[in-house]
Amino acid sequence: MMTSATVLLKDELDIVIPTIRNLDFLEMWRPFFQPYHLIIVQDGDPSKTIKVPDGFDYELYNRNDINRILGPKASCISFKDSACRCFGYMVSKKKYIYTIDDDCFVATDPSGEKINALAQHIQNLLCPSTPYFFNTLYEPYREGADFVRGYPFSLREGVPTAVSHGLWLNIPDYDAPTQLVKPLERNTRYVDAIMTIPKGTLFPMCGMNLAFDRDLIGPAMYFGLMGDGQPIGRYDDMWAGWCCKVICDHLGLGIKTGLPYIYHSKASNPFVNLRKEYKGIFWQEDIIPFFQNVVLSKEATTVQKCYVELAKQVKDNLSKLDPYFDKLAEAMVTWIEAWDELNPSAQSKSNGKA
Amino acid sequence: MMTSATVLLKDELDIVIPTIRNLDFLEMWRPFFQPYHLIIVQDGDPSKTIKVPDGFDYELYNRNDINRILGPKASCISFKDSACRCFGYMVSKKKYIYTIDDDCFVATDPSGEKINALAQHIQNLLCPSTPYFFNTLYEPYREGADFVRGYPFSLREGVPTAVSHGLWLNIPDYDAPTQLVKPLERNTRYVDAIMTIPKGTLFPMCGMNLAFDRDLIGPAMYFGLMGDGQPIGRYDDMWAGWCCKVICDHLGLGIKTGLPYIYHSKASNPFVNLRKEYKGIFWQEDIIPFFQNVVLSKEATTVQKCYVELAKQVKDNLSKLDPYFDKLAEAMVTWIEAWDELNPSAQSKSNGKA
Repeated sequence: MMTSATVLLKDELDIVIPTIRNLDFLEMWRPFFQPYHLIIVQDGDPSKTIKVPDGFDYELYNRNDINRILGPKASCISFKDSACRCFGYMVSKKKYIYTIDDDCFVATDPSGEKINALAQHIQNLLCPSTPYFFNTLYEPYREGADFVRGYPFSLREGVPTAVSHGLWLNIPDYDAPTQLVKPLERNTRYVDAIMTIPKGTLFPMCGMNLAFDRDLIGPAMYFGLMGDGQPIGRYDDMWAGWCCKVICDHLGLGIKTGLPYIYHSKASNPFVNLRKEYKGIFWQEDIIPFFQNVVLSKEATTVQKCYVELAKQVKDNLSKLDPYFDKLAEAMVTWIEAWDELNPSAQSKSNGKA
Repeated sequence: MMTSATVLLKDELDIVIPTIRNLDFLEMWRPFFQPYHLIIVQDGDPSKTIKVPDGFDYELYNRNDINRILGPKASCISFKDSACRCFGYMVSKKKYIYTIDDDCFVATDPSGEKINALAQHIQNLLCPSTPYFFNTLYEPYREGADFVRGYPFSLREGVPTAVSHGLWLNIPDYDAPTQLVKPLERNTRYVDAIMTIPKGTLFPMCGMNLAFDRDLIGPAMYFGLMGDGQPIGRYDDMWAGWCCKVICDHLGLGIKTGLPYIYHSKASNPFVNLRKEYKGIFWQEDIIPFFQNVVLSKEATTVQKCYVELAKQVKDNLSKLDPYFDKLAEAMVTWIEAWDELNPSAQSKSNGKA
């Protein structure tokens, strides 16, 4: 099934990679990525040339391209931060996106087999999710598993899966304080599980190894305003995760986490990270309760409508924390306008079940 | 840590085993269970003698003992159903309970090591739970793991753990329809994870391999009216699980699931199971939404008070399904009265944080 799924989506999936350097890491991924189209979002100095190994099919956008394509709306795309990757989601014309960091390598499973992360993500996205009741044997649709005794039959059909969140062996995705306290900690535990994050529960979504269904949730995959000129960094994927989760819950869509693992090669500098993160560490204490209590209206029947409602609630509820949230709320609206300009046909599409 | 934890709780934990046969299965558990006290609840014909292997410290209760100790209140304890095990929870004087079925053997982990299930349960119960936010690397308190980036710091202290729900290798805990459809399915996947079931999410709690903190949640561990004279079976542990989950959510307590595994040796007869289950399969479609919407009052500050409120709501909301729920609601109250009679000091104890 995994092989046929991979072939099936060959023309329906783009791989989005944000980078500031030559993409040597693709050599290791060649057997898995080469059949797919890559969208490379070059961050930083646009005059620099990024080398891509021979044989890959790709398009590359630097800051000049982003400015040219979006005009004044380019202000919603972060600069000097990997949050710029979401520009790639916007210009893609495919149904599925896989995004991966350029310091992530192919991991091996406990039997020593190389893990085809992309194939597992595709499988996750093609199987339904089960957000309304917990299954103690984890993913019920996997070979050798099922729903356990006591799982309501009416819920076994599941709901469409919008997001597949993969994990990381070796360097775990820790915040700066934890990095500082545990500099030597490595994740060596291979947990052979996939699960749906239950409805009403928020999670920290990491953008390092992430796949999603663009048609179902794309317009909510905005990575916010980070990096150059912004008071915060390293919360781009978290922001997208919180927004996606409340919108998926509202629209009846699912988010999975667990397999596949990639091998995260290098810890980023904890001192630099602390500078980027420290406001976020304060702010998230208010942001999380905000997202836990967000209610979207019945009229919010598309991702776009949900997202614009959310932007308004961000402005109303979070700008007391810092004027940054005013700017962010405006950028959220700009992002949707830009998305709809580049994706006119998807504008009024209604997703999932409200 | 695991070894010292085991020693630590030697005089604070009882193992409760419901049975109708000689307890030969204890031979395999001897290295792990022998230091502990056993409470054996003999089901069925009280004139039958249950043999317990030499060297175990135990007390045994048959139906005559239950009737003698509880008098008319013995009506709340099921007969000819392993739901009778909850009598053992009531007569225990210890802080912790581990309960296991007599067809569960010692499992081995992927390295071939025998799994000390009890030690892992103790460890689970002694570590806090994290029901308010999902941690993508699972149990954050385990060796080699932690809270990931984006996990609010204010939530990292966690809450007390009330229940540890262990899993099963070999024969999975399936309902009769799934057993009939997949007679040959075996669970061979060892998932090396422990996790907190998020607040607001219900789960199917299986009584086969279960530990809990009697002081924190004991009075909610009622296994209902099943077996002889009742229209339903195999929902005893499910009922207890739903009640415990809403009460834990209300009181700010946690429930963990995952490790440890036991080896479940023998599938029960699916035809017999279907007869026991079929009403439950209908009813759970209404019971689950009921429990998803239960709200307990601010005055419900102890497990007992929560449980009595819940009994009233069961009567008010579920007896339209079947007169059985009237009887069950009354038995829930009787159970609490009996619990308080046998455990007078715990009667007014306030648990967790409301």
